[in-house]
Amino acid sequence: MSANGHTNGVNGANGLPDHPGFTAIPARENPHPHTARNPYGHNAGVTDFLSNVSRFKIIESTLREGEQFANAFFDTEKKIEIAKALDDFGVDYIELTSPCASEQSRRDCEAICKLGLKAKILTHIRCHMDDARVAVETGVDGVDVVIGTSSYLREHSHGKDMTYIKNTAIEVIEFVKSKGIEVRFSSEDSFRSDLVELLSLYSAVDQVGVNRVGIADTVGCASPRQVYELVRVLRGVVKCDIEIHLHNDTGCAIANAYCALEGGATHVDTSVLGIGERNGITPLGGLMARMIAVDRDYVMSKYKLHKLKDIEDLVAESVQINIPFNNYITGFCAFTHKAGIHAKAILNNPSTYEIIDPSDFGMTRYVHFASRLTGWNAIKSRAQQLNLEMTDAQYKECTAKIKALADIRPIAIDDADSIIRAYHRNLNKSGEDAFLMDLTPDEKLQFAAKEKEFARQEA
Amino acid sequence: MSANGHTNGVNGANGLPDHPGFTAIPARENPHPHTARNPYGHNAGVTDFLSNVSRFKIIESTLREGEQFANAFFDTEKKIEIAKALDDFGVDYIELTSPCASEQSRRDCEAICKLGLKAKILTHIRCHMDDARVAVETGVDGVDVVIGTSSYLREHSHGKDMTYIKNTAIEVIEFVKSKGIEVRFSSEDSFRSDLVELLSLYSAVDQVGVNRVGIADTVGCASPRQVYELVRVLRGVVKCDIEIHLHNDTGCAIANAYCALEGGATHVDTSVLGIGERNGITPLGGLMARMIAVDRDYVMSKYKLHKLKDIEDLVAESVQINIPFNNYITGFCAFTHKAGIHAKAILNNPSTYEIIDPSDFGMTRYVHFASRLTGWNAIKSRAQQLNLEMTDAQYKECTAKIKALADIRPIAIDDADSIIRAYHRNLNKSGEDAFLMDLTPDEKLQFAAKEKEFARQEA
Repeated sequence: MSANGHTNGVNGANGLPDHPGFTAIPARENPHPHTARNPYGHNAGVTDFLSNVSRFKIIESTLREGEQFANAFFDTEKKIEIAKALDDFGVDYIELTSPCASEQSRRDCEAICKLGLKAKILTHIRCHMDDARVAVETGVDGVDVVIGTSSYLREHSHGKDMTYIKNTAIEVIEFVKSKGIEVRFSSEDSFRSDLVELLSLYSAVDQVGVNRVGIADTVGCASPRQVYELVRVLRGVVKCDIEIHLHNDTGCAIANAYCALEGGATHVDTSVLGIGERNGITPLGGLMARMIAVDRDYVMSKYKLHKLKDIEDLVAESVQINIPFNNYITGFCAFTHKAGIHAKAILNNPSTYEIIDPSDFGMTRYVHFASRLTGWNAIKSRAQQLNLEMTDAQYKECTAKIKALADIRPIAIDDADSIIRAYHRNLNKSGEDAFLMDLTPDEKLQFAAKEKEFARQEA
Repeated sequence: MSANGHTNGVNGANGLPDHPGFTAIPARENPHPHTARNPYGHNAGVTDFLSNVSRFKIIESTLREGEQFANAFFDTEKKIEIAKALDDFGVDYIELTSPCASEQSRRDCEAICKLGLKAKILTHIRCHMDDARVAVETGVDGVDVVIGTSSYLREHSHGKDMTYIKNTAIEVIEFVKSKGIEVRFSSEDSFRSDLVELLSLYSAVDQVGVNRVGIADTVGCASPRQVYELVRVLRGVVKCDIEIHLHNDTGCAIANAYCALEGGATHVDTSVLGIGERNGITPLGGLMARMIAVDRDYVMSKYKLHKLKDIEDLVAESVQINIPFNNYITGFCAFTHKAGIHAKAILNNPSTYEIIDPSDFGMTRYVHFASRLTGWNAIKSRAQQLNLEMTDAQYKECTAKIKALADIRPIAIDDADSIIRAYHRNLNKSGEDAFLMDLTPDEKLQFAAKEKEFARQEA
């Protein structure tokens, strides 16, 4: 059994070159040598001294950004259920809608603070003393302060100039800190803000002791290399932590979060399934997919990945959406392999065509056996791995049985193995073991009919 | 009316700093000065001499990669329908499943070649003379050749060494070229292949005159900066075009495509809704979202964006999936704004919170009026834009009517405008104009009931 949980022992020990991908960063001694054991590992970010890909934290914003999703109307009970599930999963922070948004928002914020969760509770307010005074009385562990800094927002939203923004920010930060709780200051629409003004503002709030500054791609316009560069420059300007909040309008929210961590960001905002304004932000599950491919040990040690699907189902049901067919990790086809050439290699060694081990998330790998794109050599290959030698005619007959069963229900690798073993046993004894133990009577009838149909086709 | 189709005249002429984002690339004279007119523009890639973000081509692979999607079983008629739709949309190439996969695949390939489409037709084969001989007889404009080069694939799939791969590649390429058609050579799992071996192989095929080399992130492990760096290095090694094929397992397929273009790639593989092995590849719509945010003029001039939704609906129906709730551009919430502060600014100037103009795709913007997160100041702001002055009490009453209608059906900006105008007319005349012209009798009854309910709540 290798370190990644697969049962194939040859990974990394096959004598062939094992180039870990290609990176802009000069090779250095890997400060995280444990990751090298992972045959799925890509150490680009891990070997860079700026990078936090092996020590990032999650600020989970389903109960703030997610509440701005078109379909989201969480009542108190649902908010508490979601907060508890996220806490159990292991997120570092849970961010809540401003207590100033409505009387109910304030009461919900107080109720969640009283739950005694391990995760720190944050609330998200406008950069204004009126809001700050309300926020610090709710019992939160920290306050996330935000103000728009782009010319768009300054003209079309709040109408304030940068001097006013800086002075207000300092007043709010010093006030929140005086209450003994964390404070973050974020610009909004950071990538359409003037760079010099932005750095000047962040530098000023860093000097008064802000805990974290935030960069926000509010409109989803930023590209990965822009994100990397802005974070890297900011990393040289401030001492405090750096948070990143990324919308997904142009499909870069996960990639941008990764590049932000490479550039020195410390905290990533997520929401379950990415729900938020418009098409949302970096999804929690998608970020897990990205990060586990880079540093599996860190992700596995910190987050209860088996709970991901339950949390997604909980939120999807609350906001009345379906899990997208192509959702990261939990989408129905995330671990389904179809083409014959893929299926054969996957059976041989799953890491050939998988960068993520589905069992890390309590998920199952499917190989699509009942397709014109696959063939009996996949089954022969698998049988030989299981040390079950048969003739080619027998492999073909066994394949026909698997295809017949695959027409009745989805066939996982384990199911295929059971069928192959049963077929092999039946060759050497009188009587016939069932191919799958848990077939219903109706499925048994369907299977018999399929077998007849397949036999006709062969003839 | 500004260049981007919005009716707000102040974009880029507001006297405030208009920083175009931040980029790693030294500022140079913009070779595409027309893009600077776009208030949504981000010229990072456009100003880099390596970059092809303003001249990329699409190789549409719904009928090849997409056929490997778990649910995809296209018959000949459906393949022809999809090919015609993609051709009409304006894709540069259409890639088809290997004619060697099955007898039906070969016949379908020939049928599509005979349609006389504007797009060039490609078929995708293993790097083998047997396959090449079949492919060149189908009538295709080009042949895409692929072979696995990673240690994983070499051990667990085909079992060939690099010398064999190189010699076979050269034989196949020279054969295909001798037939007067295009040929592309791609490695598979390029990011887990040995870099020196990979560059040596690409250099060899470039020297025998291959038209295009392909980089493939077959397992979806690559990160944006890895992609940029590998493409940039390859750009210095080969003279031919560079194609990129990117799986989305870790959420980077769109971002990686963008970074590949920044690094000098010329062609991007897409499929409709991203369908393919596992959770698929760079989606056509998602790539359009990314690219229109960077060079709207190029994208608008080349692709019939209004057809995107029809093509997605066609493919989704064929493979029996729902369009994801958060799909780029066409997802139901892609242009829905909810938070009060967002709604107000969006009404004031859409580009405040939108990087893409929905009307470019024939889509409609929604502002979520019936939420506790929004308020009457959004309606006041919109009414004032329409030069309809009223008292605050009247704005509030008008807002209540819009909220009542929003409870009955989704309210688009145009609907809100109609209601505001009707409300304003009714103030100054006897009798009452309908608030929306096309309400059904049933909706009118619902509206009357809602109005009573809202009045009770106010009291």
